[in-house]
Amino acid sequence: MIRFNNDYNKPAHSEVLKAVMDISDVSYPGYGLDELCEKAKAEIKKYINKPEAEVHFLVGGTQTNFIVITSALRSYQSVISADSGHISVHETGAIENTGHKVETVAGKDGKLTAAQVKEVAENYRISGVKEHITEPKMVYISFPTEYGTIYSKKEIEEISAVCKEYDLYFFIDGARLSYGLAAEGNDVTMEDLAKFADVFYCGGTKCGAMFGEAVIITNKSLMSGFRSYMKQNGALLAKGWLLGAQFNALFEDGLYFKMAKSSVKYAMKIKKAFKDKGIKTYIKSPTNQQFVILSRGQMDKLSPKYAFEYEGRYDEDSHIVRFCTSWANTEAEVDELVKDIERL
Amino acid sequence: MIRFNNDYNKPAHSEVLKAVMDISDVSYPGYGLDELCEKAKAEIKKYINKPEAEVHFLVGGTQTNFIVITSALRSYQSVISADSGHISVHETGAIENTGHKVETVAGKDGKLTAAQVKEVAENYRISGVKEHITEPKMVYISFPTEYGTIYSKKEIEEISAVCKEYDLYFFIDGARLSYGLAAEGNDVTMEDLAKFADVFYCGGTKCGAMFGEAVIITNKSLMSGFRSYMKQNGALLAKGWLLGAQFNALFEDGLYFKMAKSSVKYAMKIKKAFKDKGIKTYIKSPTNQQFVILSRGQMDKLSPKYAFEYEGRYDEDSHIVRFCTSWANTEAEVDELVKDIERL
Amino acid sequence: MIRFNNDYNKPAHSEVLKAVMDISDVSYPGYGLDELCEKAKAEIKKYINKPEAEVHFLVGGTQTNFIVITSALRSYQSVISADSGHISVHETGAIENTGHKVETVAGKDGKLTAAQVKEVAENYRISGVKEHITEPKMVYISFPTEYGTIYSKKEIEEISAVCKEYDLYFFIDGARLSYGLAAEGNDVTMEDLAKFADVFYCGGTKCGAMFGEAVIITNKSLMSGFRSYMKQNGALLAKGWLLGAQFNALFEDGLYFKMAKSSVKYAMKIKKAFKDKGIKTYIKSPTNQQFVILSRGQMDKLSPKYAFEYEGRYDEDSHIVRFCTSWANTEAEVDELVKDIERL
Amino acid sequence: MIRFNNDYNKPAHSEVLKAVMDISDVSYPGYGLDELCEKAKAEIKKYINKPEAEVHFLVGGTQTNFIVITSALRSYQSVISADSGHISVHETGAIENTGHKVETVAGKDGKLTAAQVKEVAENYRISGVKEHITEPKMVYISFPTEYGTIYSKKEIEEISAVCKEYDLYFFIDGARLSYGLAAEGNDVTMEDLAKFADVFYCGGTKCGAMFGEAVIITNKSLMSGFRSYMKQNGALLAKGWLLGAQFNALFEDGLYFKMAKSSVKYAMKIKKAFKDKGIKTYIKSPTNQQFVILSRGQMDKLSPKYAFEYEGRYDEDSHIVRFCTSWANTEAEVDELVKDIERL
Repeated sequence: MIRFNNDYNKPAHSEVLKAVMDISDVSYPGYGLDELCEKAKAEIKKYINKPEAEVHFLVGGTQTNFIVITSALRSYQSVISADSGHISVHETGAIENTGHKVETVAGKDGKLTAAQVKEVAENYRISGVKEHITEPKMVYISFPTEYGTIYSKKEIEEISAVCKEYDLYFFIDGARLSYGLAAEGNDVTMEDLAKFADVFYCGGTKCGAMFGEAVIITNKSLMSGFRSYMKQNGALLAKGWLLGAQFNALFEDGLYFKMAKSSVKYAMKIKKAFKDKGIKTYIKSPTNQQFVILSRGQMDKLSPKYAFEYEGRYDEDSHIVRFCTSWANTEAEVDELVKDIERL
Repeated sequence: MIRFNNDYNKPAHSEVLKAVMDISDVSYPGYGLDELCEKAKAEIKKYINKPEAEVHFLVGGTQTNFIVITSALRSYQSVISADSGHISVHETGAIENTGHKVETVAGKDGKLTAAQVKEVAENYRISGVKEHITEPKMVYISFPTEYGTIYSKKEIEEISAVCKEYDLYFFIDGARLSYGLAAEGNDVTMEDLAKFADVFYCGGTKCGAMFGEAVIITNKSLMSGFRSYMKQNGALLAKGWLLGAQFNALFEDGLYFKMAKSSVKYAMKIKKAFKDKGIKTYIKSPTNQQFVILSRGQMDKLSPKYAFEYEGRYDEDSHIVRFCTSWANTEAEVDELVKDIERL
Repeated sequence: MIRFNNDYNKPAHSEVLKAVMDISDVSYPGYGLDELCEKAKAEIKKYINKPEAEVHFLVGGTQTNFIVITSALRSYQSVISADSGHISVHETGAIENTGHKVETVAGKDGKLTAAQVKEVAENYRISGVKEHITEPKMVYISFPTEYGTIYSKKEIEEISAVCKEYDLYFFIDGARLSYGLAAEGNDVTMEDLAKFADVFYCGGTKCGAMFGEAVIITNKSLMSGFRSYMKQNGALLAKGWLLGAQFNALFEDGLYFKMAKSSVKYAMKIKKAFKDKGIKTYIKSPTNQQFVILSRGQMDKLSPKYAFEYEGRYDEDSHIVRFCTSWANTEAEVDELVKDIERL
Repeated sequence: MIRFNNDYNKPAHSEVLKAVMDISDVSYPGYGLDELCEKAKAEIKKYINKPEAEVHFLVGGTQTNFIVITSALRSYQSVISADSGHISVHETGAIENTGHKVETVAGKDGKLTAAQVKEVAENYRISGVKEHITEPKMVYISFPTEYGTIYSKKEIEEISAVCKEYDLYFFIDGARLSYGLAAEGNDVTMEDLAKFADVFYCGGTKCGAMFGEAVIITNKSLMSGFRSYMKQNGALLAKGWLLGAQFNALFEDGLYFKMAKSSVKYAMKIKKAFKDKGIKTYIKSPTNQQFVILSRGQMDKLSPKYAFEYEGRYDEDSHIVRFCTSWANTEAEVDELVKDIERL
């Protein structure tokens, strides 16, 4: 079975595993207060122009999302998200569980717009019954989105401008950040994210690590008490240096970006193969996730050999499926898939 | 100023006030454990055919909604509501504050349908990733709705059937219940509500009381610990008999229904006046709330003399406003308004 | 049955009821945005020297406590209380339900000390594992306490000084405030409370109103969003002016203080009667609550005629009971009790 | 530096690391739905006589504690714990953050008694104001305790009997379980824990794993929705098989028990060395944590070479410190420490 079902089906990139094994006999202080974490924070900060930013390492994406959001908001404040946002649909109500409404706007290809944010914020500003409604106080986007699409620098800048205008926090979920940065046509850098967002994260779990997400907080007012929120919510890993070691491996020599570069290249090959075959894309994605529309027959031909993810019915005769590449795929695997697509 | 802005702009119906004054020198045990509450519960239960039902008196509507919902749901369970539902838009995220997602479906005239409920429930049932999404476990409707519309007995029966099929609780918000029961064409009774819903309430605040909502729980599995939830959330009034006295006044001689009857009659007069004048209704409501579309000029003519509620812009030239009648209005007030509508 | 069981067993002081009846035919805007509330706020502010203070009217004590506390604290912050504090023992975990730990210290006669607060705060300050423990951020005391005792001005000043030193909020629960202010030997005024506390409240429910608590916030950083917290937690009464009318009646001519004066005088008579009879006091209280130690025989002699509250066993042969006076008692009732005590 | 400061200062036991490395190139389905987790569950269940028990793998201890507790309790229910319980003192109010009061009783050497539980439960049972107080519904103990002490089988059986009598859940925190099972004089087995507790866990983080806790639920009524609680609270690790691999390594050949055996043997050597030297034990512990009382001079002599944990001042002249052994220590390290203790 060759796996294109997701980007978290193998333990970790070999260099990440090596970094963990290299310290297998070394002792460290607990809870992230160790030199490996310090070094990893410094490595990450080389990519942003924010010396005073805070970096924290958490274990997983849902955990990161709800802790960032609840640490930022008061209980009557809400977070604006595209209706396809991970926090809205795939986290078992984790945000609501911390007491906050997710105010959704209709996404387009997984993205929301500055204009949509402005409308929600303006509606609150002009409302005469403010205490009867939730106050939108944060904007959540994912980069890349759940559909693999990306925002342009201009789009992010515009959203950021609306956030500043209406005093909203801007939070960017980077669970798959590396694939977004490596996308064809992407003009956004980590420095841009640090400049325009109040808080964002570099996902590890889906980008080569065993687990772990690196949260970067640039807005001072979001820094206070963050470690207390982490501990209270079970996100302060006892052996924090395991996260430090992994993020060092990912960032000190640019592995995070290189790994994504080849994954995206693979995805583009697969995309082209489907296109050449006349198979339609469900959503046009420049990153490692490719959503295509297959007939049952086509699915049956590919499924004995390849793992891919079923997303739902498209119409009477066809279905949406996802092919997802990662650091764990090889060029040979991709070439084999391409050949099999050609034979469909 | 003649007030049609809402149905809670005067203290209480005179008989309710009298009932409170009549006991001004009587002592009672606290927290609703008194004979007046017992009697009021018995009076209410005369209208339903559920001897084993539990009745509780709470102070206000938002409070009632979030306590009923949080007492019924586990933290990963959600409540289905029309997008115009009070719990979704006008309670400052009270439901989310208790940890629960409000799963909205597109309402039509403020109503949801059994088919919509079925779709949401079925999607969960067939989901392969149940632990990643919230479990819809309750259906919330308001009767009448926030737009004054009502469900037919058949519609309620159908929703109830889907709830039974998918093991969902059915909760009916009756903040304005009396006006719904008194509506032209209504075929629903309190006995029906008690039969089809697991829990519903008879609103007092908007229906003639100073304050107070009477929750009727018919599903045994929702009864356990309800008073603890009330106390914990500040809804166990120390002088509980004040609620008992008011609901006795409302129910022992049918005042609750009579009062609404005349309010609705007034509303129908106003509705007809607008119609006769060629002024369009925004939503066709058979209850005490009438939403009409006025020009700025028409609004300006009426506003010096009448209080009504501005709801929002309809189009370039016109606006949606609400005229709301209640027990507090007199026939003379209504007749005067009708005349002024004719002169618009 | 003559009732000394508590101070909330009759609807309200006659002047409060009159104030409500006087407006029975007047219309007001909803949710506390009316002139009666404005006037009541102004009346209350005459007693404090804080022109910029905010006043809010809520419905009940537990509700007030949890809303004040949750609106002030972040989720990892705790509130320090005497172990006998109402928030710790009699609110069904309402504070924990909002996510906050109540950090208790051993009370003496229901009171905590500045030294105890300092110890808790200092332990946090010097802790090397701050993110593993809750941050004490607020001090809660009740004035008078649950045992009827009061703090001296000096004690309150000392607690306030520790709060300032450690950046803690100081919150005073005044559910029975009037009886404390009217106590023999009391040297604390409302102006003192407003000076030393960041937030406190004048209880209505137990002090002559039908219901209602007036929260006074003097610390600007606690003002933001308070009405949103109220609404979200079901404490924004639709007919808010009912609270305004009551607090006007209580404060515009000093009824709040006069009423308590006579209640306390009655309590002192009862206290003396027990003392003269050689019956021991459980706790020495200068306010309207008197805790005495009776034998079963003494209880049986008094209970057919008087309602009083059983508190628990004192030792093999005796029991703690509470006699509680209020505005609802008459001098004749008290004199009769005194005579019956003499005959025990 | 030789580390006796805690039992989580190195990545993992070599066999655990090997198990992870062995699968470095294998793909698995996500979220714990893989064969490694299945196998690990089966391995663990060999030690208990409960074929229908459920096993779940979570990431850390605080996370496990709050998820187990919140999934079991309704919001007005509390958990009884010794005042030294980890959930009460070192989890930043995590339990309160989920809405539940931790009802503490005075622990003796970190332990509570069946009699104490009975008293709390009985007080609730006989209370006349149940809705005003929290309902104790769960008992939490740690085995071994935070002080390294253990409960006897008889003590656990007695607590369990009280739980059954009062319908309380019995939850045993086994963050350091292996060291307790390996303790001198211990007569408790995993089978006993599964028999007497409704839910308990085998800690991995402190017992040889990189991270991970294996929750065993034996009470059917606690099983429903557990994975939803995990996901909602960020505890459903994407690469769940990393936990499966580790727990396989720990349980398939009894490593979990062997590793602890030698750790405890080391601790006993250290204990004896202190005793022989005439240095007093703060608490008599038969497990891997040893709390001793040292003078400043003694601390200064040991600290350049050994890491140990400072716990607090004992009296004017002496201090409590903890020496903690683990799988990560060698006999040579221990022998060296013993020699240095002799030279103190």
